[in-house]
Amino acid sequence: MSFTQALTTRSHATHSRVCVGLDPDPSRLPDQFNGRPDRVVEFLKVIVDATHDLACAYKPNLAFFGSLGLDGLSILRSVRDKVPVDVPVILDFKAGDIGNTADRYAAMAYDVIGADAVTVNPYMGLDAVKPFLRRNRCAFALCLTSNDSASQFQRLPADGQPLFQHIASVVSSWSHHGECGLVVGATQADDLSRIRELAPTLPILVPGVGAQGGDAEAVVRNGSDADGGGLLINASRSILYASSGDDYADKARETTEALRKATWL
Amino acid sequence: MSFTQALTTRSHATHSRVCVGLDPDPSRLPDQFNGRPDRVVEFLKVIVDATHDLACAYKPNLAFFGSLGLDGLSILRSVRDKVPVDVPVILDFKAGDIGNTADRYAAMAYDVIGADAVTVNPYMGLDAVKPFLRRNRCAFALCLTSNDSASQFQRLPADGQPLFQHIASVVSSWSHHGECGLVVGATQADDLSRIRELAPTLPILVPGVGAQGGDAEAVVRNGSDADGGGLLINASRSILYASSGDDYADKARETTEALRKATWL
Repeated sequence: MSFTQALTTRSHATHSRVCVGLDPDPSRLPDQFNGRPDRVVEFLKVIVDATHDLACAYKPNLAFFGSLGLDGLSILRSVRDKVPVDVPVILDFKAGDIGNTADRYAAMAYDVIGADAVTVNPYMGLDAVKPFLRRNRCAFALCLTSNDSASQFQRLPADGQPLFQHIASVVSSWSHHGECGLVVGATQADDLSRIRELAPTLPILVPGVGAQGGDAEAVVRNGSDADGGGLLINASRSILYASSGDDYADKARETTEALRKATWL
Repeated sequence: MSFTQALTTRSHATHSRVCVGLDPDPSRLPDQFNGRPDRVVEFLKVIVDATHDLACAYKPNLAFFGSLGLDGLSILRSVRDKVPVDVPVILDFKAGDIGNTADRYAAMAYDVIGADAVTVNPYMGLDAVKPFLRRNRCAFALCLTSNDSASQFQRLPADGQPLFQHIASVVSSWSHHGECGLVVGATQADDLSRIRELAPTLPILVPGVGAQGGDAEAVVRNGSDADGGGLLINASRSILYASSGDDYADKARETTEALRKATWL
């Protein structure tokens, strides 16, 4: 079963398109863990336990683990191992480097960390992405992102169309057995219809619904594939830091459930 | 003193533009270390000791350390600490993510690993790069890379000029006190003159001279700034794996010295 098929199966089983982003920031943890990088695994295990039946996938971000300290990769692996085996884990990495180095990044993401999928940066072209295209794995390529300066390069008119549209088409052509996906920020919902036309079968990972203010309903309307699937909608901070009190697990679950309902139309 | 000034000082002191890439691949280490990830620090310490008076800078690549195992960041930090304090260390990372995540990547690179500079991917625009623009540090943005599929996106006609030229101009406008540089593959030496025109004061990191076959003399001719400086020419595999025998340190030094001479015209 390809990664994309596994994702669809999981989505149908949970009636969920929600991806829970695991971005541990020691200064924002609930009061009982605050400022304690050594308790990140414990905190995130509670979050996973409180949300896993509502989550289609989890997405730990390398930056938040790498900045915890020199044992960041061990912490990341421990967190990854708290996620039940039937729930896909996407490592948010935005990796991209030339061939022999991309091989090493793929080994890091899939073999050392144990991720099922990785986000990648397509700027260097196919040979920076190819090592990530393993059977049953998936490389989600940045297409159109949610940050303010995204348009600086991504919307440049390139060869007759905005650069991000060109990237959507090209990445779509790389995917033969569900090994590629796209990343499109939720704040860019108006462009999702066009991206979906250009990449009809690719799963699209959509961050930016929670703290960044994207419109979840517009994302689902514009971004779903012909079968009404193909979307993963990520929220990180709005779930992890839903409460700083002792009720943080309950609040994380409530926020996840609200997003699940809002995006399962 | 800005990073760029420190680099110029170091280059003049050593009569060198050579950057030694530290990319430890356990399967390619000299016979006595072969297949021993636990001896990577020892191996690279010998390489640093054998080359540091000839090297303008060192460039460890995160991928090669991250794929060693869960203690990859500790190994990387140990290697970084073997480099004498007056020699700049550039972490090759190709990092790029939205603002609050880029903050964490900058903390990882500068604070956890202790790098003086980082390579970044500019596809997400300024706010993905800004957290790396600290005083006395430097973000080297990918411009035109040495891999076969680089032209897939980097040479697209964007707004009247190839995308990589647009990126060279824009990144140049972000640098006020030497906080930005560019990465241009040595196999693209013909384009270096134009990139130098568009970014007259930025340091340019040029990988691809050794194993990838770029022409070192053409790089210096086309890429130097008005003062004849501003270039860092990287070789990794050709230095690290110059010999698999007991003479690996001597051979690494010879290869470094040959590249130093060939690029100090």
